[in-house]
Amino acid sequence: MKIALAQLNYHIGNFEANVEKIISTARKSKENGADLVVFSELAVCGYCPDDLFYRSDFINDCNDAVEKIIAECADIPIIIGAPMSSGKRLFDAALFINKGVVKSQCKMVLPNTDVLNEHRYFEPSDKFDLIDVDGEKIALVVGGDVLDYPMAMLAKLNPNFIVNISAVPYSHDTSYQQKLSEVALKYKLPLLNVNQVGANTNMIYEGRSIAFNENGKVIAECKSFEEDLQIVDTDLFKSAGEELRKFDTTESIFNAITLGLRDYFAKMNFKKAVLGLSGGIDSAVVLALAVNALGSENVHSILMPTCYSTSHSVDDSLEMLKRTKSSYNIIPIEDLRKQFGVAMSEAFEGTKPGLAEENIQARLRGSILMAYSNKFGNILLNTSNKSEEAVGYSTLYGDMCGSLSLLGDVYKTEVYRLARYINEHCGNIIPENIITKAPSAELRPDQKDQDSLPPYDILDGILNCYLENNMTADEIKAKGFDAETVDFVLKLVKRVEYKRFQAPPILRVSSCAFGHSQSVPLVARY
Amino acid sequence: MKIALAQLNYHIGNFEANVEKIISTARKSKENGADLVVFSELAVCGYCPDDLFYRSDFINDCNDAVEKIIAECADIPIIIGAPMSSGKRLFDAALFINKGVVKSQCKMVLPNTDVLNEHRYFEPSDKFDLIDVDGEKIALVVGGDVLDYPMAMLAKLNPNFIVNISAVPYSHDTSYQQKLSEVALKYKLPLLNVNQVGANTNMIYEGRSIAFNENGKVIAECKSFEEDLQIVDTDLFKSAGEELRKFDTTESIFNAITLGLRDYFAKMNFKKAVLGLSGGIDSAVVLALAVNALGSENVHSILMPTCYSTSHSVDDSLEMLKRTKSSYNIIPIEDLRKQFGVAMSEAFEGTKPGLAEENIQARLRGSILMAYSNKFGNILLNTSNKSEEAVGYSTLYGDMCGSLSLLGDVYKTEVYRLARYINEHCGNIIPENIITKAPSAELRPDQKDQDSLPPYDILDGILNCYLENNMTADEIKAKGFDAETVDFVLKLVKRVEYKRFQAPPILRVSSCAFGHSQSVPLVARY
Repeated sequence: MKIALAQLNYHIGNFEANVEKIISTARKSKENGADLVVFSELAVCGYCPDDLFYRSDFINDCNDAVEKIIAECADIPIIIGAPMSSGKRLFDAALFINKGVVKSQCKMVLPNTDVLNEHRYFEPSDKFDLIDVDGEKIALVVGGDVLDYPMAMLAKLNPNFIVNISAVPYSHDTSYQQKLSEVALKYKLPLLNVNQVGANTNMIYEGRSIAFNENGKVIAECKSFEEDLQIVDTDLFKSAGEELRKFDTTESIFNAITLGLRDYFAKMNFKKAVLGLSGGIDSAVVLALAVNALGSENVHSILMPTCYSTSHSVDDSLEMLKRTKSSYNIIPIEDLRKQFGVAMSEAFEGTKPGLAEENIQARLRGSILMAYSNKFGNILLNTSNKSEEAVGYSTLYGDMCGSLSLLGDVYKTEVYRLARYINEHCGNIIPENIITKAPSAELRPDQKDQDSLPPYDILDGILNCYLENNMTADEIKAKGFDAETVDFVLKLVKRVEYKRFQAPPILRVSSCAFGHSQSVPLVARY
Repeated sequence: MKIALAQLNYHIGNFEANVEKIISTARKSKENGADLVVFSELAVCGYCPDDLFYRSDFINDCNDAVEKIIAECADIPIIIGAPMSSGKRLFDAALFINKGVVKSQCKMVLPNTDVLNEHRYFEPSDKFDLIDVDGEKIALVVGGDVLDYPMAMLAKLNPNFIVNISAVPYSHDTSYQQKLSEVALKYKLPLLNVNQVGANTNMIYEGRSIAFNENGKVIAECKSFEEDLQIVDTDLFKSAGEELRKFDTTESIFNAITLGLRDYFAKMNFKKAVLGLSGGIDSAVVLALAVNALGSENVHSILMPTCYSTSHSVDDSLEMLKRTKSSYNIIPIEDLRKQFGVAMSEAFEGTKPGLAEENIQARLRGSILMAYSNKFGNILLNTSNKSEEAVGYSTLYGDMCGSLSLLGDVYKTEVYRLARYINEHCGNIIPENIITKAPSAELRPDQKDQDSLPPYDILDGILNCYLENNMTADEIKAKGFDAETVDFVLKLVKRVEYKRFQAPPILRVSSCAFGHSQSVPLVARY
């Protein structure tokens, strides 16, 4: 028996495109000899439509899409994810469609942590059974059910193998594939997984659909971060298979962000981007990522020096623009900054220049970038990194402006690794000086990040303990970090929750990205 | 038997303050003859701590708070809401504490719609039993369980009456009290409810704790939107009671916003506010609300006219400032606007003035307000209304700036009613001309809102159908709205999701407020 793993990139709510893609892939699979084609979780609508599930017309369109697929795929059995309504209740279903007959297996354990919110939309199912395809008894499981008690119950029914459909968000510090390998080994059952690929707003799906033999060894694997179609012969279940590969983290993050940016533009129907190029590492990496993902002809940079900008900032930026062959404007903000001072002079009378004046520069830059965006339709890319977002080393409505944040889930230390990776793999486009100079916001004379913050390796170490590993202050100190520094950093993190509340969507590449799904009350005293 | 309904305003995570308040209220109740004191759902930590529930030190502090309460309330039985951990599982519990002995009833039906996200933190309980207080058998229920099957099961155990503890978010278009009245009547059981009062960030809790006899008539009622302590004698269960009162919607919204604003400032430790006063109705109502809630000495206004500002805008604003006796600056932005034009002249060469130039004015104003906020620590109040938020008639990083939005859940037509209410009840502080003039953003000559948008009564009617009533386009048209207008409005609503993504927290007064809990994917084509 030959099973096609159809790993596709769906556009939420774009039923016409999704259905067309599903039907043509089913046909292609049949032509290539497949006996069964498997699509990912909630394929007909794309994962995850969030509150569109509350709209009755959206559910109707999902049902119409399924009907169309049933009609067009009469000659090949398929398994496909779709929402299934029963009265007022909605289920996250895997539909097995064979010659117009539909059987379903619905998700039993609804995840409701971090970015997943399935109890909001779905009822948990309590029914389970094997499906029969050409005499093969298959345990069909949706998403994380394969890691939980439903799999244990299905295993007792003695299936020949497992088919799991999923839409698992990518994060560099977790591996769904590793968990699947352990499931195959635990139940001594071959396992085929079809995972969603593509990005929807901040959420990135890796794809990397995979097949394991009963020893948890890999017998087939789809590509990461792109569409793919692999046909797996069940005869392969007897082959020795290979160990699960581990990818380089920086390469993986680079690919994830590239897909995230490309899909955001493609699915929003955007063409051109704009960013503020400061001469620092963050905006340089954003420019490099954007040029790589969108093409240099689609990325415009704006340099906005003041009197506090060092000359090398402009020179380094111009050098990078030369190397990337992309367009730019230089818009000095010195006169505007002075005019702003004149405007505020009465209100600010008798006060000393400080944070307010520093932030004015950042907000003038934000306004210039947005003006350019409004005028020409270029979408503003935010250039903040995760370390800054965490401690609020950024100006709300200033450098926090943007339609999408590429690096908001990437710590500063990882930004440096990304820069090195880019220079090795995308041509040597980031000038060495940008990578080696001491980081500075250049909002006052001789300012350096390290005047206000701990060194980035210390800062990122503490943040990683607190965020990704959910450790308490005491636990972090016990790891050897200086107690005062830990308290200082955590105090900052908590104090600037209000800034992150208004941050742009951040491409998620870790298990703990800032964003709407990470909700901490602003008014809490904790 | 005398039961105290202890309706208190808790500060999330401020255990010291919450515990002190709980203990002193228990003592006061005992002094006033109470035999049992009832506190609201999750009282020890305040509702709702959201992702703080993921922090082990937070849960430990909750447990410590409960221990302190047990020790200090040994001489009076109490019922109090607290998170209860059992291994790795967490429950939303009502604890009955009597002479150091603790019995618990945990929430069985976890709400996960709109602003509620309890599956994210809690496990549903499956145990239920009555509690015995001085021989009285009480059905103790947490939150919405009283409206669902757990109540039906508890009723079969023949309790003498029901005690419900809750933290139900306020919305003017729903009535928890009405539902409770129906429960009392349905089961023919007296019902006492203690509800949380106060606001946490965007969420407002009305309080209005209430007691019904077995006919669903009101026999006691706490105040709305403030702390209260009422002692109910169970002898009253036999009294005839009164019909549930209906409050005026506008009055209720006024009180809700006032509490929301006051609590945001009190709980964040803020004193002073700043806002941009345009001469229009929205900023006038925000000024009036702020002066009423925070005191006129704590509210500073900034007038930022351009050449497009009509003279009456400034005059009307000055008249209102005179009536409210609050401070202000006039900071004309004409020179800044021109300087901005100079800065952009090369980049914008050959283009015609349009939206980009209009938005520049709004963003300069946003930057001035934030500069003032940064300099003096005044918190910027956002002045957008719900109609604007819905259709994106606002500038991101411009008039969408702010720390808190007071009117972002109030339709424009309701803003007018609020203005009338304020002039009737808070002194005649809003000049008549502000209320009667045609609304305008004044970003180009002779601009009027109605040039770009349908009349507000039509617009708000359509939005209300789509948002609060979740109707489809076809259903809205069937109600008699012009088809083209409906399509135009819904297209706008969907297109500007990206703006709302970065909006400030919005005080929620309806059942469908914009905000992080209302999540629609940006990249959806739907």
